[in-house]
Amino acid sequence: MKLTVIGVGSASPQVDKNPSAFLLSIDNEYILIDCGEGTQYRLLDQSIKVSRIKTICISHLHGDHYFGLIGLLSSFNLKGRKDPITLVGPEGLQKILDIQFEAANTTLNYELNFVLNRNSQDKVLLEKKNFKIESIPLIHRVQSTGFLVTEKEGDRHIQAHKLPENFPLPFYSELKKGNDVVDPLTNITYLASELTKSGTPKKVFAYCSDTAYNPEIVPIVKEANLMYHEATFLKDLDQRAEMTQHSTALQAGKIAKAAVVKKLLLGHLSSRYKSSEEHISEAKEAFGNVEMAIEGAVYDVI
Amino acid sequence: MKLTVIGVGSASPQVDKNPSAFLLSIDNEYILIDCGEGTQYRLLDQSIKVSRIKTICISHLHGDHYFGLIGLLSSFNLKGRKDPITLVGPEGLQKILDIQFEAANTTLNYELNFVLNRNSQDKVLLEKKNFKIESIPLIHRVQSTGFLVTEKEGDRHIQAHKLPENFPLPFYSELKKGNDVVDPLTNITYLASELTKSGTPKKVFAYCSDTAYNPEIVPIVKEANLMYHEATFLKDLDQRAEMTQHSTALQAGKIAKAAVVKKLLLGHLSSRYKSSEEHISEAKEAFGNVEMAIEGAVYDVI
Repeated sequence: MKLTVIGVGSASPQVDKNPSAFLLSIDNEYILIDCGEGTQYRLLDQSIKVSRIKTICISHLHGDHYFGLIGLLSSFNLKGRKDPITLVGPEGLQKILDIQFEAANTTLNYELNFVLNRNSQDKVLLEKKNFKIESIPLIHRVQSTGFLVTEKEGDRHIQAHKLPENFPLPFYSELKKGNDVVDPLTNITYLASELTKSGTPKKVFAYCSDTAYNPEIVPIVKEANLMYHEATFLKDLDQRAEMTQHSTALQAGKIAKAAVVKKLLLGHLSSRYKSSEEHISEAKEAFGNVEMAIEGAVYDVI
Repeated sequence: MKLTVIGVGSASPQVDKNPSAFLLSIDNEYILIDCGEGTQYRLLDQSIKVSRIKTICISHLHGDHYFGLIGLLSSFNLKGRKDPITLVGPEGLQKILDIQFEAANTTLNYELNFVLNRNSQDKVLLEKKNFKIESIPLIHRVQSTGFLVTEKEGDRHIQAHKLPENFPLPFYSELKKGNDVVDPLTNITYLASELTKSGTPKKVFAYCSDTAYNPEIVPIVKEANLMYHEATFLKDLDQRAEMTQHSTALQAGKIAKAAVVKKLLLGHLSSRYKSSEEHISEAKEAFGNVEMAIEGAVYDVI
């Protein structure tokens, strides 16, 4: 699992920042999380194969998190995409897209499967073969939902040297799943626990933006391998953070510490801040392993 | 009157092009014509004072001409704009904006005055002190309208050396408008034709995108000082141009020649073309004074 940062800006446009967009790759399949204006151009700049995007998750309907979506979906169509897209988003998003497709006389050549996100705690939004996406209920001025993406534990690894010669091939996949196998010809039982080792451990990425300080998410993001948390303000503006329902860098650090995540990435800084150094040192008051999310950088989720 | 080119790309996103957006300045007031995705970021890159934009004209509801509008209008609000905006656009545009403002709980702090453009020929869409905007009916897959922006002729220039001493100050403005003045005290008549010269001649800019070849617009754009005309294809693809209701470079040249415009700018080239040289030479078969519209460049309308 890898996270590519496309945009970490906040609501006011800035020359050197793009609005929110993050690309999570799992086994060469991409999940796009948020899609601010210009995201499709940034994906193009970075030569990212957009055909690999199969899932798009939109956190909330403030423009800096979704104004680029209609353009990306329209371009998929122009380029002849046939592969379906699963779009996870809040109430209202589908109508916003439909009205614009209709105005352009656009009929999509691919399926756009909408998953309505009602922001209920711990709800599984999407489950696929190798990952699942659950909602993280956030607190913001409009319904806002974070996403907990869990890459499932991989198949168990076969210990080939422990297997007898001429071991029947069809038994492999059962053992990989952790199931014991009885050979009907010989009546011998093969134990998965003896013949296999654990597969790749599960990986968890948590995306929390935009939100006021919300300790209720701690049990949900518990022990995530990587958490992105917005840090719009510094703590001296905590009242402004509360009023606008955003977080401070210190609050992001507190969530990370309480949830014992492995690593914290910060972003969505207010355009009033010209540097991010103070955000990092402030978050470090609570939690050590913290970095600024840098546009264009790729982070291993380990 | 000056034209700043912000974007001349066509529907498929390209690394080195921005979608359609043009800024026309008249006496330090800006008219934004079309607003493709990312326009607000390009205006920021070019340090353009967006507070000077008072009028926005949207030609049609294909995304490469308007997907950046909602972001620009939202950012005006975030930045505390109070000055009204006049928005000229087709049926459906207002609803697309309203539904998105509503989803974000956004109440605009400035007036957004919508002028519905029904595409009827020669209709005056907007008339202000120093310019007027008329529609140019285009032919496209959805209703598409070009814009004819006419900077009105300036006030006549007073020939100060021809005026008597102690010439009454209130008479100046009448003479500037070209009106003769009778002094009620002396009964002397002052003739505007003798005491003034013509003011700055009117300037006309014509914007024609997107459209199939449409000679019916020739009388409307007649003698424009500058015409921007789309040239999506070269003439070897004229059937594709007809099918998709776009123009070839030659067709753009033919319109320019028939209308005796002073200068032609081409743009909106299909992403299949890596260079624009052939478009220029093809347009020159019909019309000599032609250039490619270059993003970031400023063209005097003379």
